[in-house]
Amino acid sequence: MPSKLKIQISGQGLHDITDLIRRELEQTNKAEGLCHLFIQHTSASLLIQENYDPTAKADLESWFNRLVPENDPLYTHTLEGPDDMPAHIKAALTSSSLVIPIMGGTLALGTWQGIFLWEHRYYCGDRNIILHISD
Amino acid sequence: MPSKLKIQISGQGLHDITDLIRRELEQTNKAEGLCHLFIQHTSASLLIQENYDPTAKADLESWFNRLVPENDPLYTHTLEGPDDMPAHIKAALTSSSLVIPIMGGTLALGTWQGIFLWEHRYYCGDRNIILHISD
Amino acid sequence: MPSKLKIQISGQGLHDITDLIRRELEQTNKAEGLCHLFIQHTSASLLIQENYDPTAKADLESWFNRLVPENDPLYTHTLEGPDDMPAHIKAALTSSSLVIPIMGGTLALGTWQGIFLWEHRYYCGDRNIILHISD
Repeated sequence: MPSKLKIQISGQGLHDITDLIRRELEQTNKAEGLCHLFIQHTSASLLIQENYDPTAKADLESWFNRLVPENDPLYTHTLEGPDDMPAHIKAALTSSSLVIPIMGGTLALGTWQGIFLWEHRYYCGDRNIILHISD
Repeated sequence: MPSKLKIQISGQGLHDITDLIRRELEQTNKAEGLCHLFIQHTSASLLIQENYDPTAKADLESWFNRLVPENDPLYTHTLEGPDDMPAHIKAALTSSSLVIPIMGGTLALGTWQGIFLWEHRYYCGDRNIILHISD
Repeated sequence: MPSKLKIQISGQGLHDITDLIRRELEQTNKAEGLCHLFIQHTSASLLIQENYDPTAKADLESWFNRLVPENDPLYTHTLEGPDDMPAHIKAALTSSSLVIPIMGGTLALGTWQGIFLWEHRYYCGDRNIILHISD
């Protein structure tokens, strides 16, 4: 059955949630199957990326910030602040859901893969993720 | 069992298909699980985005049109018209499938999330989506 | 049960793995359901794209190479070579997983859709994909 996780966010950027998802999975005792994650927001997204070298994470954020800058004269959707429209575009360029296989009772991630919640706004507070384990 | 939906498209841009998918889901009486959507085309894609303020939708389309313009001298794949290669690139930057959790008999979308078929070509006609509900 | 496939890669670019996945699926005798693919790397991704005209594939690679060039002065993550940070960014812009419906015992791909492993590095060797078939 899908369950809702509230993730405490401390600002814009990539937040590593791998350990949190691993702990949730352990409680299910699922040996083989799939772990589905879905974020219920349009200005944050889910991403699998390198979790080893922090410079990779920093460069990824910088590159996206340059590609999708704030205050672009193209934007007409500006009422919610300069970080809002860039957030929607970054969310469209990435994804609102992830599917990760479960093997031997654990997430079958590669050696350098981590799961990230990518907060695209200047936001501190909760974000909702729906977790679902299936066969 | 997967079923095929034919979606009538009225031109390039983001088409809100949330209500259509909700109606399909209601017919299945599924209380908890996952709703999978897959588009059988390489010049259209599926996206979850804000469905409240139409300026967000318009800006998203404008931004992608500027990032991936027609008649780029880089293109060699030009036989099918100026909108064809940009359509393939936009499809690669977004996604051909979506997975949305089902909770309490309904799609567990966030307050501002809608499901969109993003038609990347100047196209009026049918597009095929495969819908599948799973546990 | 998820199973691991080792894919032999012969360098940077889009590698068509449609036939390989079809053969794996045939061995399962699955009539209806979903085929899940997950790549265990952060510098390669999975993509559904046109598999007919090779110029579409070439243009897609060229466009991404121009959008995400090597030796961008923005990069600080440079120790693993000039192709490493662009590879992470291209992986973030595409996807690490695919979900494709199965209908009538075969992948329900559209007429022009193929499944590609997109190698973003100058790499020759194995890449791991996890294949999982579900109801």
